[in-house]
Amino acid sequence: MALKSFVEVKPDSHFPLENLPFGVFKPEPASDARPGVAIGDYVLDLSVIAAAGLFDGPCLKSSDCFNQPNLNKFLHLGRSAWKEARETLQTILSATDPKLRDNASLRHKALIPMDKVEMVLPVAVGDYTDFFSSMHHAKNCGTIFRGPETPINSNWFHLPIAYHGRASSIVVSGTEIIRPRGQGHPTGDSAAYFGPSRKLDFELEMAAVVGPGNALGKPVSIEEARDHIFGLVLMNDWSARDIQAWEYVPLGPFLGKSFGTTLSPWIVTLDALEPFSCDAPKQDPPPLPYLTEKISKNYDISLEVHIKPAGQEDSCTVTRSNFKHLYWTVTQQLAHHTVNGCNLRPGDLLGSGTISGPEPESHGCLLELTWNGQKPMSLGGVTRTFLEDGDEVVLTGYCKGDGYKIGFGTCSGKILPSPR
Amino acid sequence: MALKSFVEVKPDSHFPLENLPFGVFKPEPASDARPGVAIGDYVLDLSVIAAAGLFDGPCLKSSDCFNQPNLNKFLHLGRSAWKEARETLQTILSATDPKLRDNASLRHKALIPMDKVEMVLPVAVGDYTDFFSSMHHAKNCGTIFRGPETPINSNWFHLPIAYHGRASSIVVSGTEIIRPRGQGHPTGDSAAYFGPSRKLDFELEMAAVVGPGNALGKPVSIEEARDHIFGLVLMNDWSARDIQAWEYVPLGPFLGKSFGTTLSPWIVTLDALEPFSCDAPKQDPPPLPYLTEKISKNYDISLEVHIKPAGQEDSCTVTRSNFKHLYWTVTQQLAHHTVNGCNLRPGDLLGSGTISGPEPESHGCLLELTWNGQKPMSLGGVTRTFLEDGDEVVLTGYCKGDGYKIGFGTCSGKILPSPR
Repeated sequence: MALKSFVEVKPDSHFPLENLPFGVFKPEPASDARPGVAIGDYVLDLSVIAAAGLFDGPCLKSSDCFNQPNLNKFLHLGRSAWKEARETLQTILSATDPKLRDNASLRHKALIPMDKVEMVLPVAVGDYTDFFSSMHHAKNCGTIFRGPETPINSNWFHLPIAYHGRASSIVVSGTEIIRPRGQGHPTGDSAAYFGPSRKLDFELEMAAVVGPGNALGKPVSIEEARDHIFGLVLMNDWSARDIQAWEYVPLGPFLGKSFGTTLSPWIVTLDALEPFSCDAPKQDPPPLPYLTEKISKNYDISLEVHIKPAGQEDSCTVTRSNFKHLYWTVTQQLAHHTVNGCNLRPGDLLGSGTISGPEPESHGCLLELTWNGQKPMSLGGVTRTFLEDGDEVVLTGYCKGDGYKIGFGTCSGKILPSPR
Repeated sequence: MALKSFVEVKPDSHFPLENLPFGVFKPEPASDARPGVAIGDYVLDLSVIAAAGLFDGPCLKSSDCFNQPNLNKFLHLGRSAWKEARETLQTILSATDPKLRDNASLRHKALIPMDKVEMVLPVAVGDYTDFFSSMHHAKNCGTIFRGPETPINSNWFHLPIAYHGRASSIVVSGTEIIRPRGQGHPTGDSAAYFGPSRKLDFELEMAAVVGPGNALGKPVSIEEARDHIFGLVLMNDWSARDIQAWEYVPLGPFLGKSFGTTLSPWIVTLDALEPFSCDAPKQDPPPLPYLTEKISKNYDISLEVHIKPAGQEDSCTVTRSNFKHLYWTVTQQLAHHTVNGCNLRPGDLLGSGTISGPEPESHGCLLELTWNGQKPMSLGGVTRTFLEDGDEVVLTGYCKGDGYKIGFGTCSGKILPSPR
């Protein structure tokens, strides 16, 4: 049974009262950015709610965390503050509470139509880590690059493999992505290619947003890990496969990824996702004790990728996958990340890696979908091996509840040509 | 011939008037951090100099860049502001200029004995990239890990290989380093090791400090690259070789590096290093046009590593190397980093990678010096393969001028045991 808000929430909305994802927005182009939550087709301005004194619980009543240009300060406060904010907001947005419902001037100031605002990045990202947690993705990539004999390295089943990504080039959904130039892998005896990437790809990922963080030298145990994750976003880790293939041995991906990574603007909290938790895949071999969870949970989040090819009117669905396919859980990722003493800070991102499922139609990137360009895809009237200039890629995701959806909105980006 | 300051500068000081490296310090433990330059045994407080109106040039006279807790705002201003600051400071610290020399109260406020201050990180590091630019290091590591047949991958000679490091765990010289725990590479048929790293190493590196940065999608050309580098610091990229060896395929180093990276507190500017520029090594094959420099320069910087073993009184010199051994120049690194459109921000770091020279005694880490533990080193009365708890590692470096040194001070850290 769906909760009821005095704000209209359409039946297929991603943002009912059960969700209340956090983001950062500008009401007008010249305004300061400030935190908000999504409700139906509106954004609730948390700086206005805070100024009106409606955050009256012990963690938030004297905090200026909602008078900030990002959510980092709120994330730093930790789970008790996050719970308090959610409870306050579910109360004041409910159909039965008069405080906001019956205060027309406050309501007018605080609730802004979503199509009128500009969303910006919800957090200042200190460090961005990208994991490699889908076994199906690892297997497909290994088969494509190294052959079918041992597609997955033996270390993969013992630890959540990851690398550090580039924080500076993280952008919010809707930002156009300029096709990168670079050196591509030589073919046969020819020299390395240089020019605009010829194998530009998307990657369907989600990322966990970290808070409150840990001190250098103080690992977070697997039992504590959940309290260090605020929520999840959709992420498109754009990849230039020709650049990546040439540069990645022995130190990993670099310029093949660092030209842009797109985030959805709304962070859906773990509290909102809790009803959609499900068993994580059985791990064999069993993980070491520091990675062993009493209850190992994933979340059942349906994910889709749509491509609107350049010059076409309609977009095509190219992938249907699910977050629950991930082998390593977000809590295992976080415990592993800190076991050496590495410090995480509020707003840090832990990317999942490409989320491929077991079936071909659930592959999370064109590298896998077109098998490195060998099997072109048909998209409406055109075919694609990799992305062309003008193509737009849209990720979306949601959990299906009883009479409501917990959705992530969209994470989109359009490809612009390389500069000359 | 050395320049003359009214501040005493001892003959072997790292910080004569020709140097004037920039750092950030606290005069008292409870003070706000503020920028300073080193002169002899003193730190000149730039917030005091700015408040006294002595920065009177066009770039700096109305700027609050020296009333900041880091140098990022100053770095953002670019080369014309950097030159102006250097000229102003060389003037007011010279033996012949009366403005500071003859103003006893200002002098007393602005010049603080170096041994009384606390140095902090000079910049807020947004992203930290570590290159792999020493051919000798690449060859030695490749030989140790993969054998002598093809120690260096073919891509290495075509592009400056690099990976993204962890920004959160960068610390200033003097910070103690806690031995990381983690999974070590299995030996033979045994399971992966878990526990405190048994192969803890230092890496002798330097890092270029970036400013003013570039916009996403706007590469910096090789001709412009020098104007985007403010200066250099010493860097110790602590490494756990057993953790690194197990995790690094296929996405590169992660927890084997992310537990701590130490920087020297003083950034020596490229302007101060200019008299010590020298030819870079000839590159064969010739690099692609976007990496081809009209004049390809390195800097002749003598580097040393000293280890003071736990419980010993004296430290031993374990390495003598030189920055000039690097194959890829810092300007090539920067042009490569941005060729795909990746944006750099003021304060970003470009690490050189371990700076090994051609001779065994110039190897820049214990992995090479002890050949992965096979050849223990004698340090005074004790032997070492890798670092033990209580060992202290000190990097130092300087350029030798005619009657003066341009020095980097030291970059030090002592190993503490893993937590239980």
